Amino acid sequence: MNFFACSLGGCRDAVIESASAVLGQFGGPASATVIGRNEKFDVLNAVFLNAASANVFDFDDTHARTIIHPTAPVAPPLLAHAEGTRISGEKLLLALVLGVETECRIGNAISPGHYRRGWHITSTCGVFGAAAAAGKALNLSEQHMNWALGNASAQAGGLLETLGTMGKSISVGNAARNGLVAAMFAQQGVFGPEAPLEGTYGFLRVTGDNPDFSCITRALGDSWEIALNTYKPYPCGIVLMPVVEACLTLVRTEAPAAAEVKRIEITAHPLLRERTDRVHPLSGREAQVSAQHAVAVTLTRGRAGLAEFSDACAVHPTLSALRESVVFNDEPSSPVESAAVTVHLRDGRTLTHRIDHAHGSVNRPLSDGDLEQKLKDLIDYGGSKCKAQPLVDAIWALDSVNDAGAIMRLAAGR
Amino acid sequence: MNFFACSLGGCRDAVIESASAVLGQFGGPASATVIGRNEKFDVLNAVFLNAASANVFDFDDTHARTIIHPTAPVAPPLLAHAEGTRISGEKLLLALVLGVETECRIGNAISPGHYRRGWHITSTCGVFGAAAAAGKALNLSEQHMNWALGNASAQAGGLLETLGTMGKSISVGNAARNGLVAAMFAQQGVFGPEAPLEGTYGFLRVTGDNPDFSCITRALGDSWEIALNTYKPYPCGIVLMPVVEACLTLVRTEAPAAAEVKRIEITAHPLLRERTDRVHPLSGREAQVSAQHAVAVTLTRGRAGLAEFSDACAVHPTLSALRESVVFNDEPSSPVESAAVTVHLRDGRTLTHRIDHAHGSVNRPLSDGDLEQKLKDLIDYGGSKCKAQPLVDAIWALDSVNDAGAIMRLAAGR
Repeated sequence: MNFFACSLGGCRDAVIESASAVLGQFGGPASATVIGRNEKFDVLNAVFLNAASANVFDFDDTHARTIIHPTAPVAPPLLAHAEGTRISGEKLLLALVLGVETECRIGNAISPGHYRRGWHITSTCGVFGAAAAAGKALNLSEQHMNWALGNASAQAGGLLETLGTMGKSISVGNAARNGLVAAMFAQQGVFGPEAPLEGTYGFLRVTGDNPDFSCITRALGDSWEIALNTYKPYPCGIVLMPVVEACLTLVRTEAPAAAEVKRIEITAHPLLRERTDRVHPLSGREAQVSAQHAVAVTLTRGRAGLAEFSDACAVHPTLSALRESVVFNDEPSSPVESAAVTVHLRDGRTLTHRIDHAHGSVNRPLSDGDLEQKLKDLIDYGGSKCKAQPLVDAIWALDSVNDAGAIMRLAAGR
Repeated sequence: MNFFACSLGGCRDAVIESASAVLGQFGGPASATVIGRNEKFDVLNAVFLNAASANVFDFDDTHARTIIHPTAPVAPPLLAHAEGTRISGEKLLLALVLGVETECRIGNAISPGHYRRGWHITSTCGVFGAAAAAGKALNLSEQHMNWALGNASAQAGGLLETLGTMGKSISVGNAARNGLVAAMFAQQGVFGPEAPLEGTYGFLRVTGDNPDFSCITRALGDSWEIALNTYKPYPCGIVLMPVVEACLTLVRTEAPAAAEVKRIEITAHPLLRERTDRVHPLSGREAQVSAQHAVAVTLTRGRAGLAEFSDACAVHPTLSALRESVVFNDEPSSPVESAAVTVHLRDGRTLTHRIDHAHGSVNRPLSDGDLEQKLKDLIDYGGSKCKAQPLVDAIWALDSVNDAGAIMRLAAGR
């Protein structure tokens, strides 16, 4: 549900328009649906575009321990495969779970050093998840699955430096596309190294500073990383979730006019300040990681959807004064999923609200209803004219259908 | 000349067959020649295949300081572009030189730490060379060229662990394909970071342990890395060149029967032993980096072509005894491009030959005639039935033609 929501929200983003214009020139048989769009593309190009759109706003699912967005690289190869080859919903979901498990366990083995070094972990680990998922859907043998992971290792890439630029979407799209290619190449006899992960020059040692190999296999089949996946209610950095929620709660009881506000205090773990202290973001992508923007726009508009974190909103002049009134109050003992917002008014009053477990965290996940609403909101935002209710129904029924690929007809644009 | 030779030699390799079978399923308009093959492919797939075939035997050009094979990632995007858009040979060659300069200077900045860490430097730096070359051919502005490099940075990958497997060819093919995509995306408005190379989380810092940024710009336009490019006479590891040449020289004067040989001594820099001490290689790819195999096969057959480093030859039983007779004699003061081979015969005689500057090194490059012969030999080996002389003539005339793409008709298979 969350994957389709995010992809439908991002399906008309400028990077998707540009990428489809380029890739379309070289497109093969148009057999695969591009989510939210009217035209089909060949399988590999559709997979690239669907992964890129699902992640373009970083509004997709987040594996808290690694900050991997697991589904964007993994779901698109499976859905495109299902459109071309009849497979059951149960089989597709099994492959999805295994793909997510693969990428997150690999991510665990190299976290936190890998991300800290500068790797865009969704992309670098995502290609393994996509390869494993595609390999499962293709019924690869153990030997061929190992080759698939080896062929994935040859294609792992993506740098944090590209965050905040369209370039990020290239590595996410590649992770999905190249993971599928890795599995199909393996099926066709293209062999990789015996130990693509743990080898001397394998992925873990080369890209992780102190890899913990045991993370790959510890409690395999007993504990599941997908159960640690979280789903964001607001399209901004994960650490900002409790801040936005606190502001929305304040606004619901009393909405102070911007002119009445003297100072706004955010009390939270120092990580929040380190990651999101950006007083004047210049783009939607920067606004998504600006605490000042999140506070100002949420208090002013009483909403925190994609429109509130768009390019246009980021540079809206009325937000400047309120952003400048925000101060950070570090509280190292506070958990990352909690925060308090205190609004000091010019008349001397203070309004304050604390969130202990942010909505969208593992402890307080979005409900099924919340996810349905997110899908509907993002369909509206994305402009695909896709009909929400038939898609919602098909998503909830996916585990029981014989033809999983049929869902893609409902996710196309109109 | 060397690029076409290698690509024609590799055009029917199993990895090219498998990759073209997979990619062909998703192929778009078949407008671009795949070197040595009868069928055309869409531009992106042709670029992938041409880069992979040029490098499959590591017989392509080598930039000695970084061990980058510069041309495989850079030439294919230019040639495919030239087939679709009329550009002059002069313009194509300018873009080729600039692409080679870009990838080699980036490689210089992160050598030797990058390769030592486990990166397949031809792939990781090649994508930047391909992006720069394609960007030049597309007449990108300075701003768009920077985005092209940023879009390349999001796609840099390739691990040494895949050497000796087909998986290596995936990252080389990707470097060429994705570099072209990076430039075309930039042209279409897909923007990357301002500092994709030198940024905090840019390519140089993330993949190089102590990057020397000054290598990128020092003496730019005055000293040219392409002038340091070398061309191999024999299809094996660069350090083995003087060993093979010494053996061929010995065989020409006196060819001892294997049964007469008691012991063979290689006297060389210890690097030779470290890189190539493999007494019984099991595949052609392993044979290419086995000093024991190189000595045994060259002394026995008096030749050192691709057939002598094939899978079949690697496991040929008659070579075993001779391989086991090889011993290494480390000589740390010896330059890497020199080596001596001494054959101790059972009758007490010794045959010895020392090479100071191996044929194919910067100091003793292949002649134009040698390169022509290499092309002819590799056409025969590759089985494309491509006609050598018209292609040779077209290559030497490339700098003066108005339609550079026409050369690809001569490089196709028949």
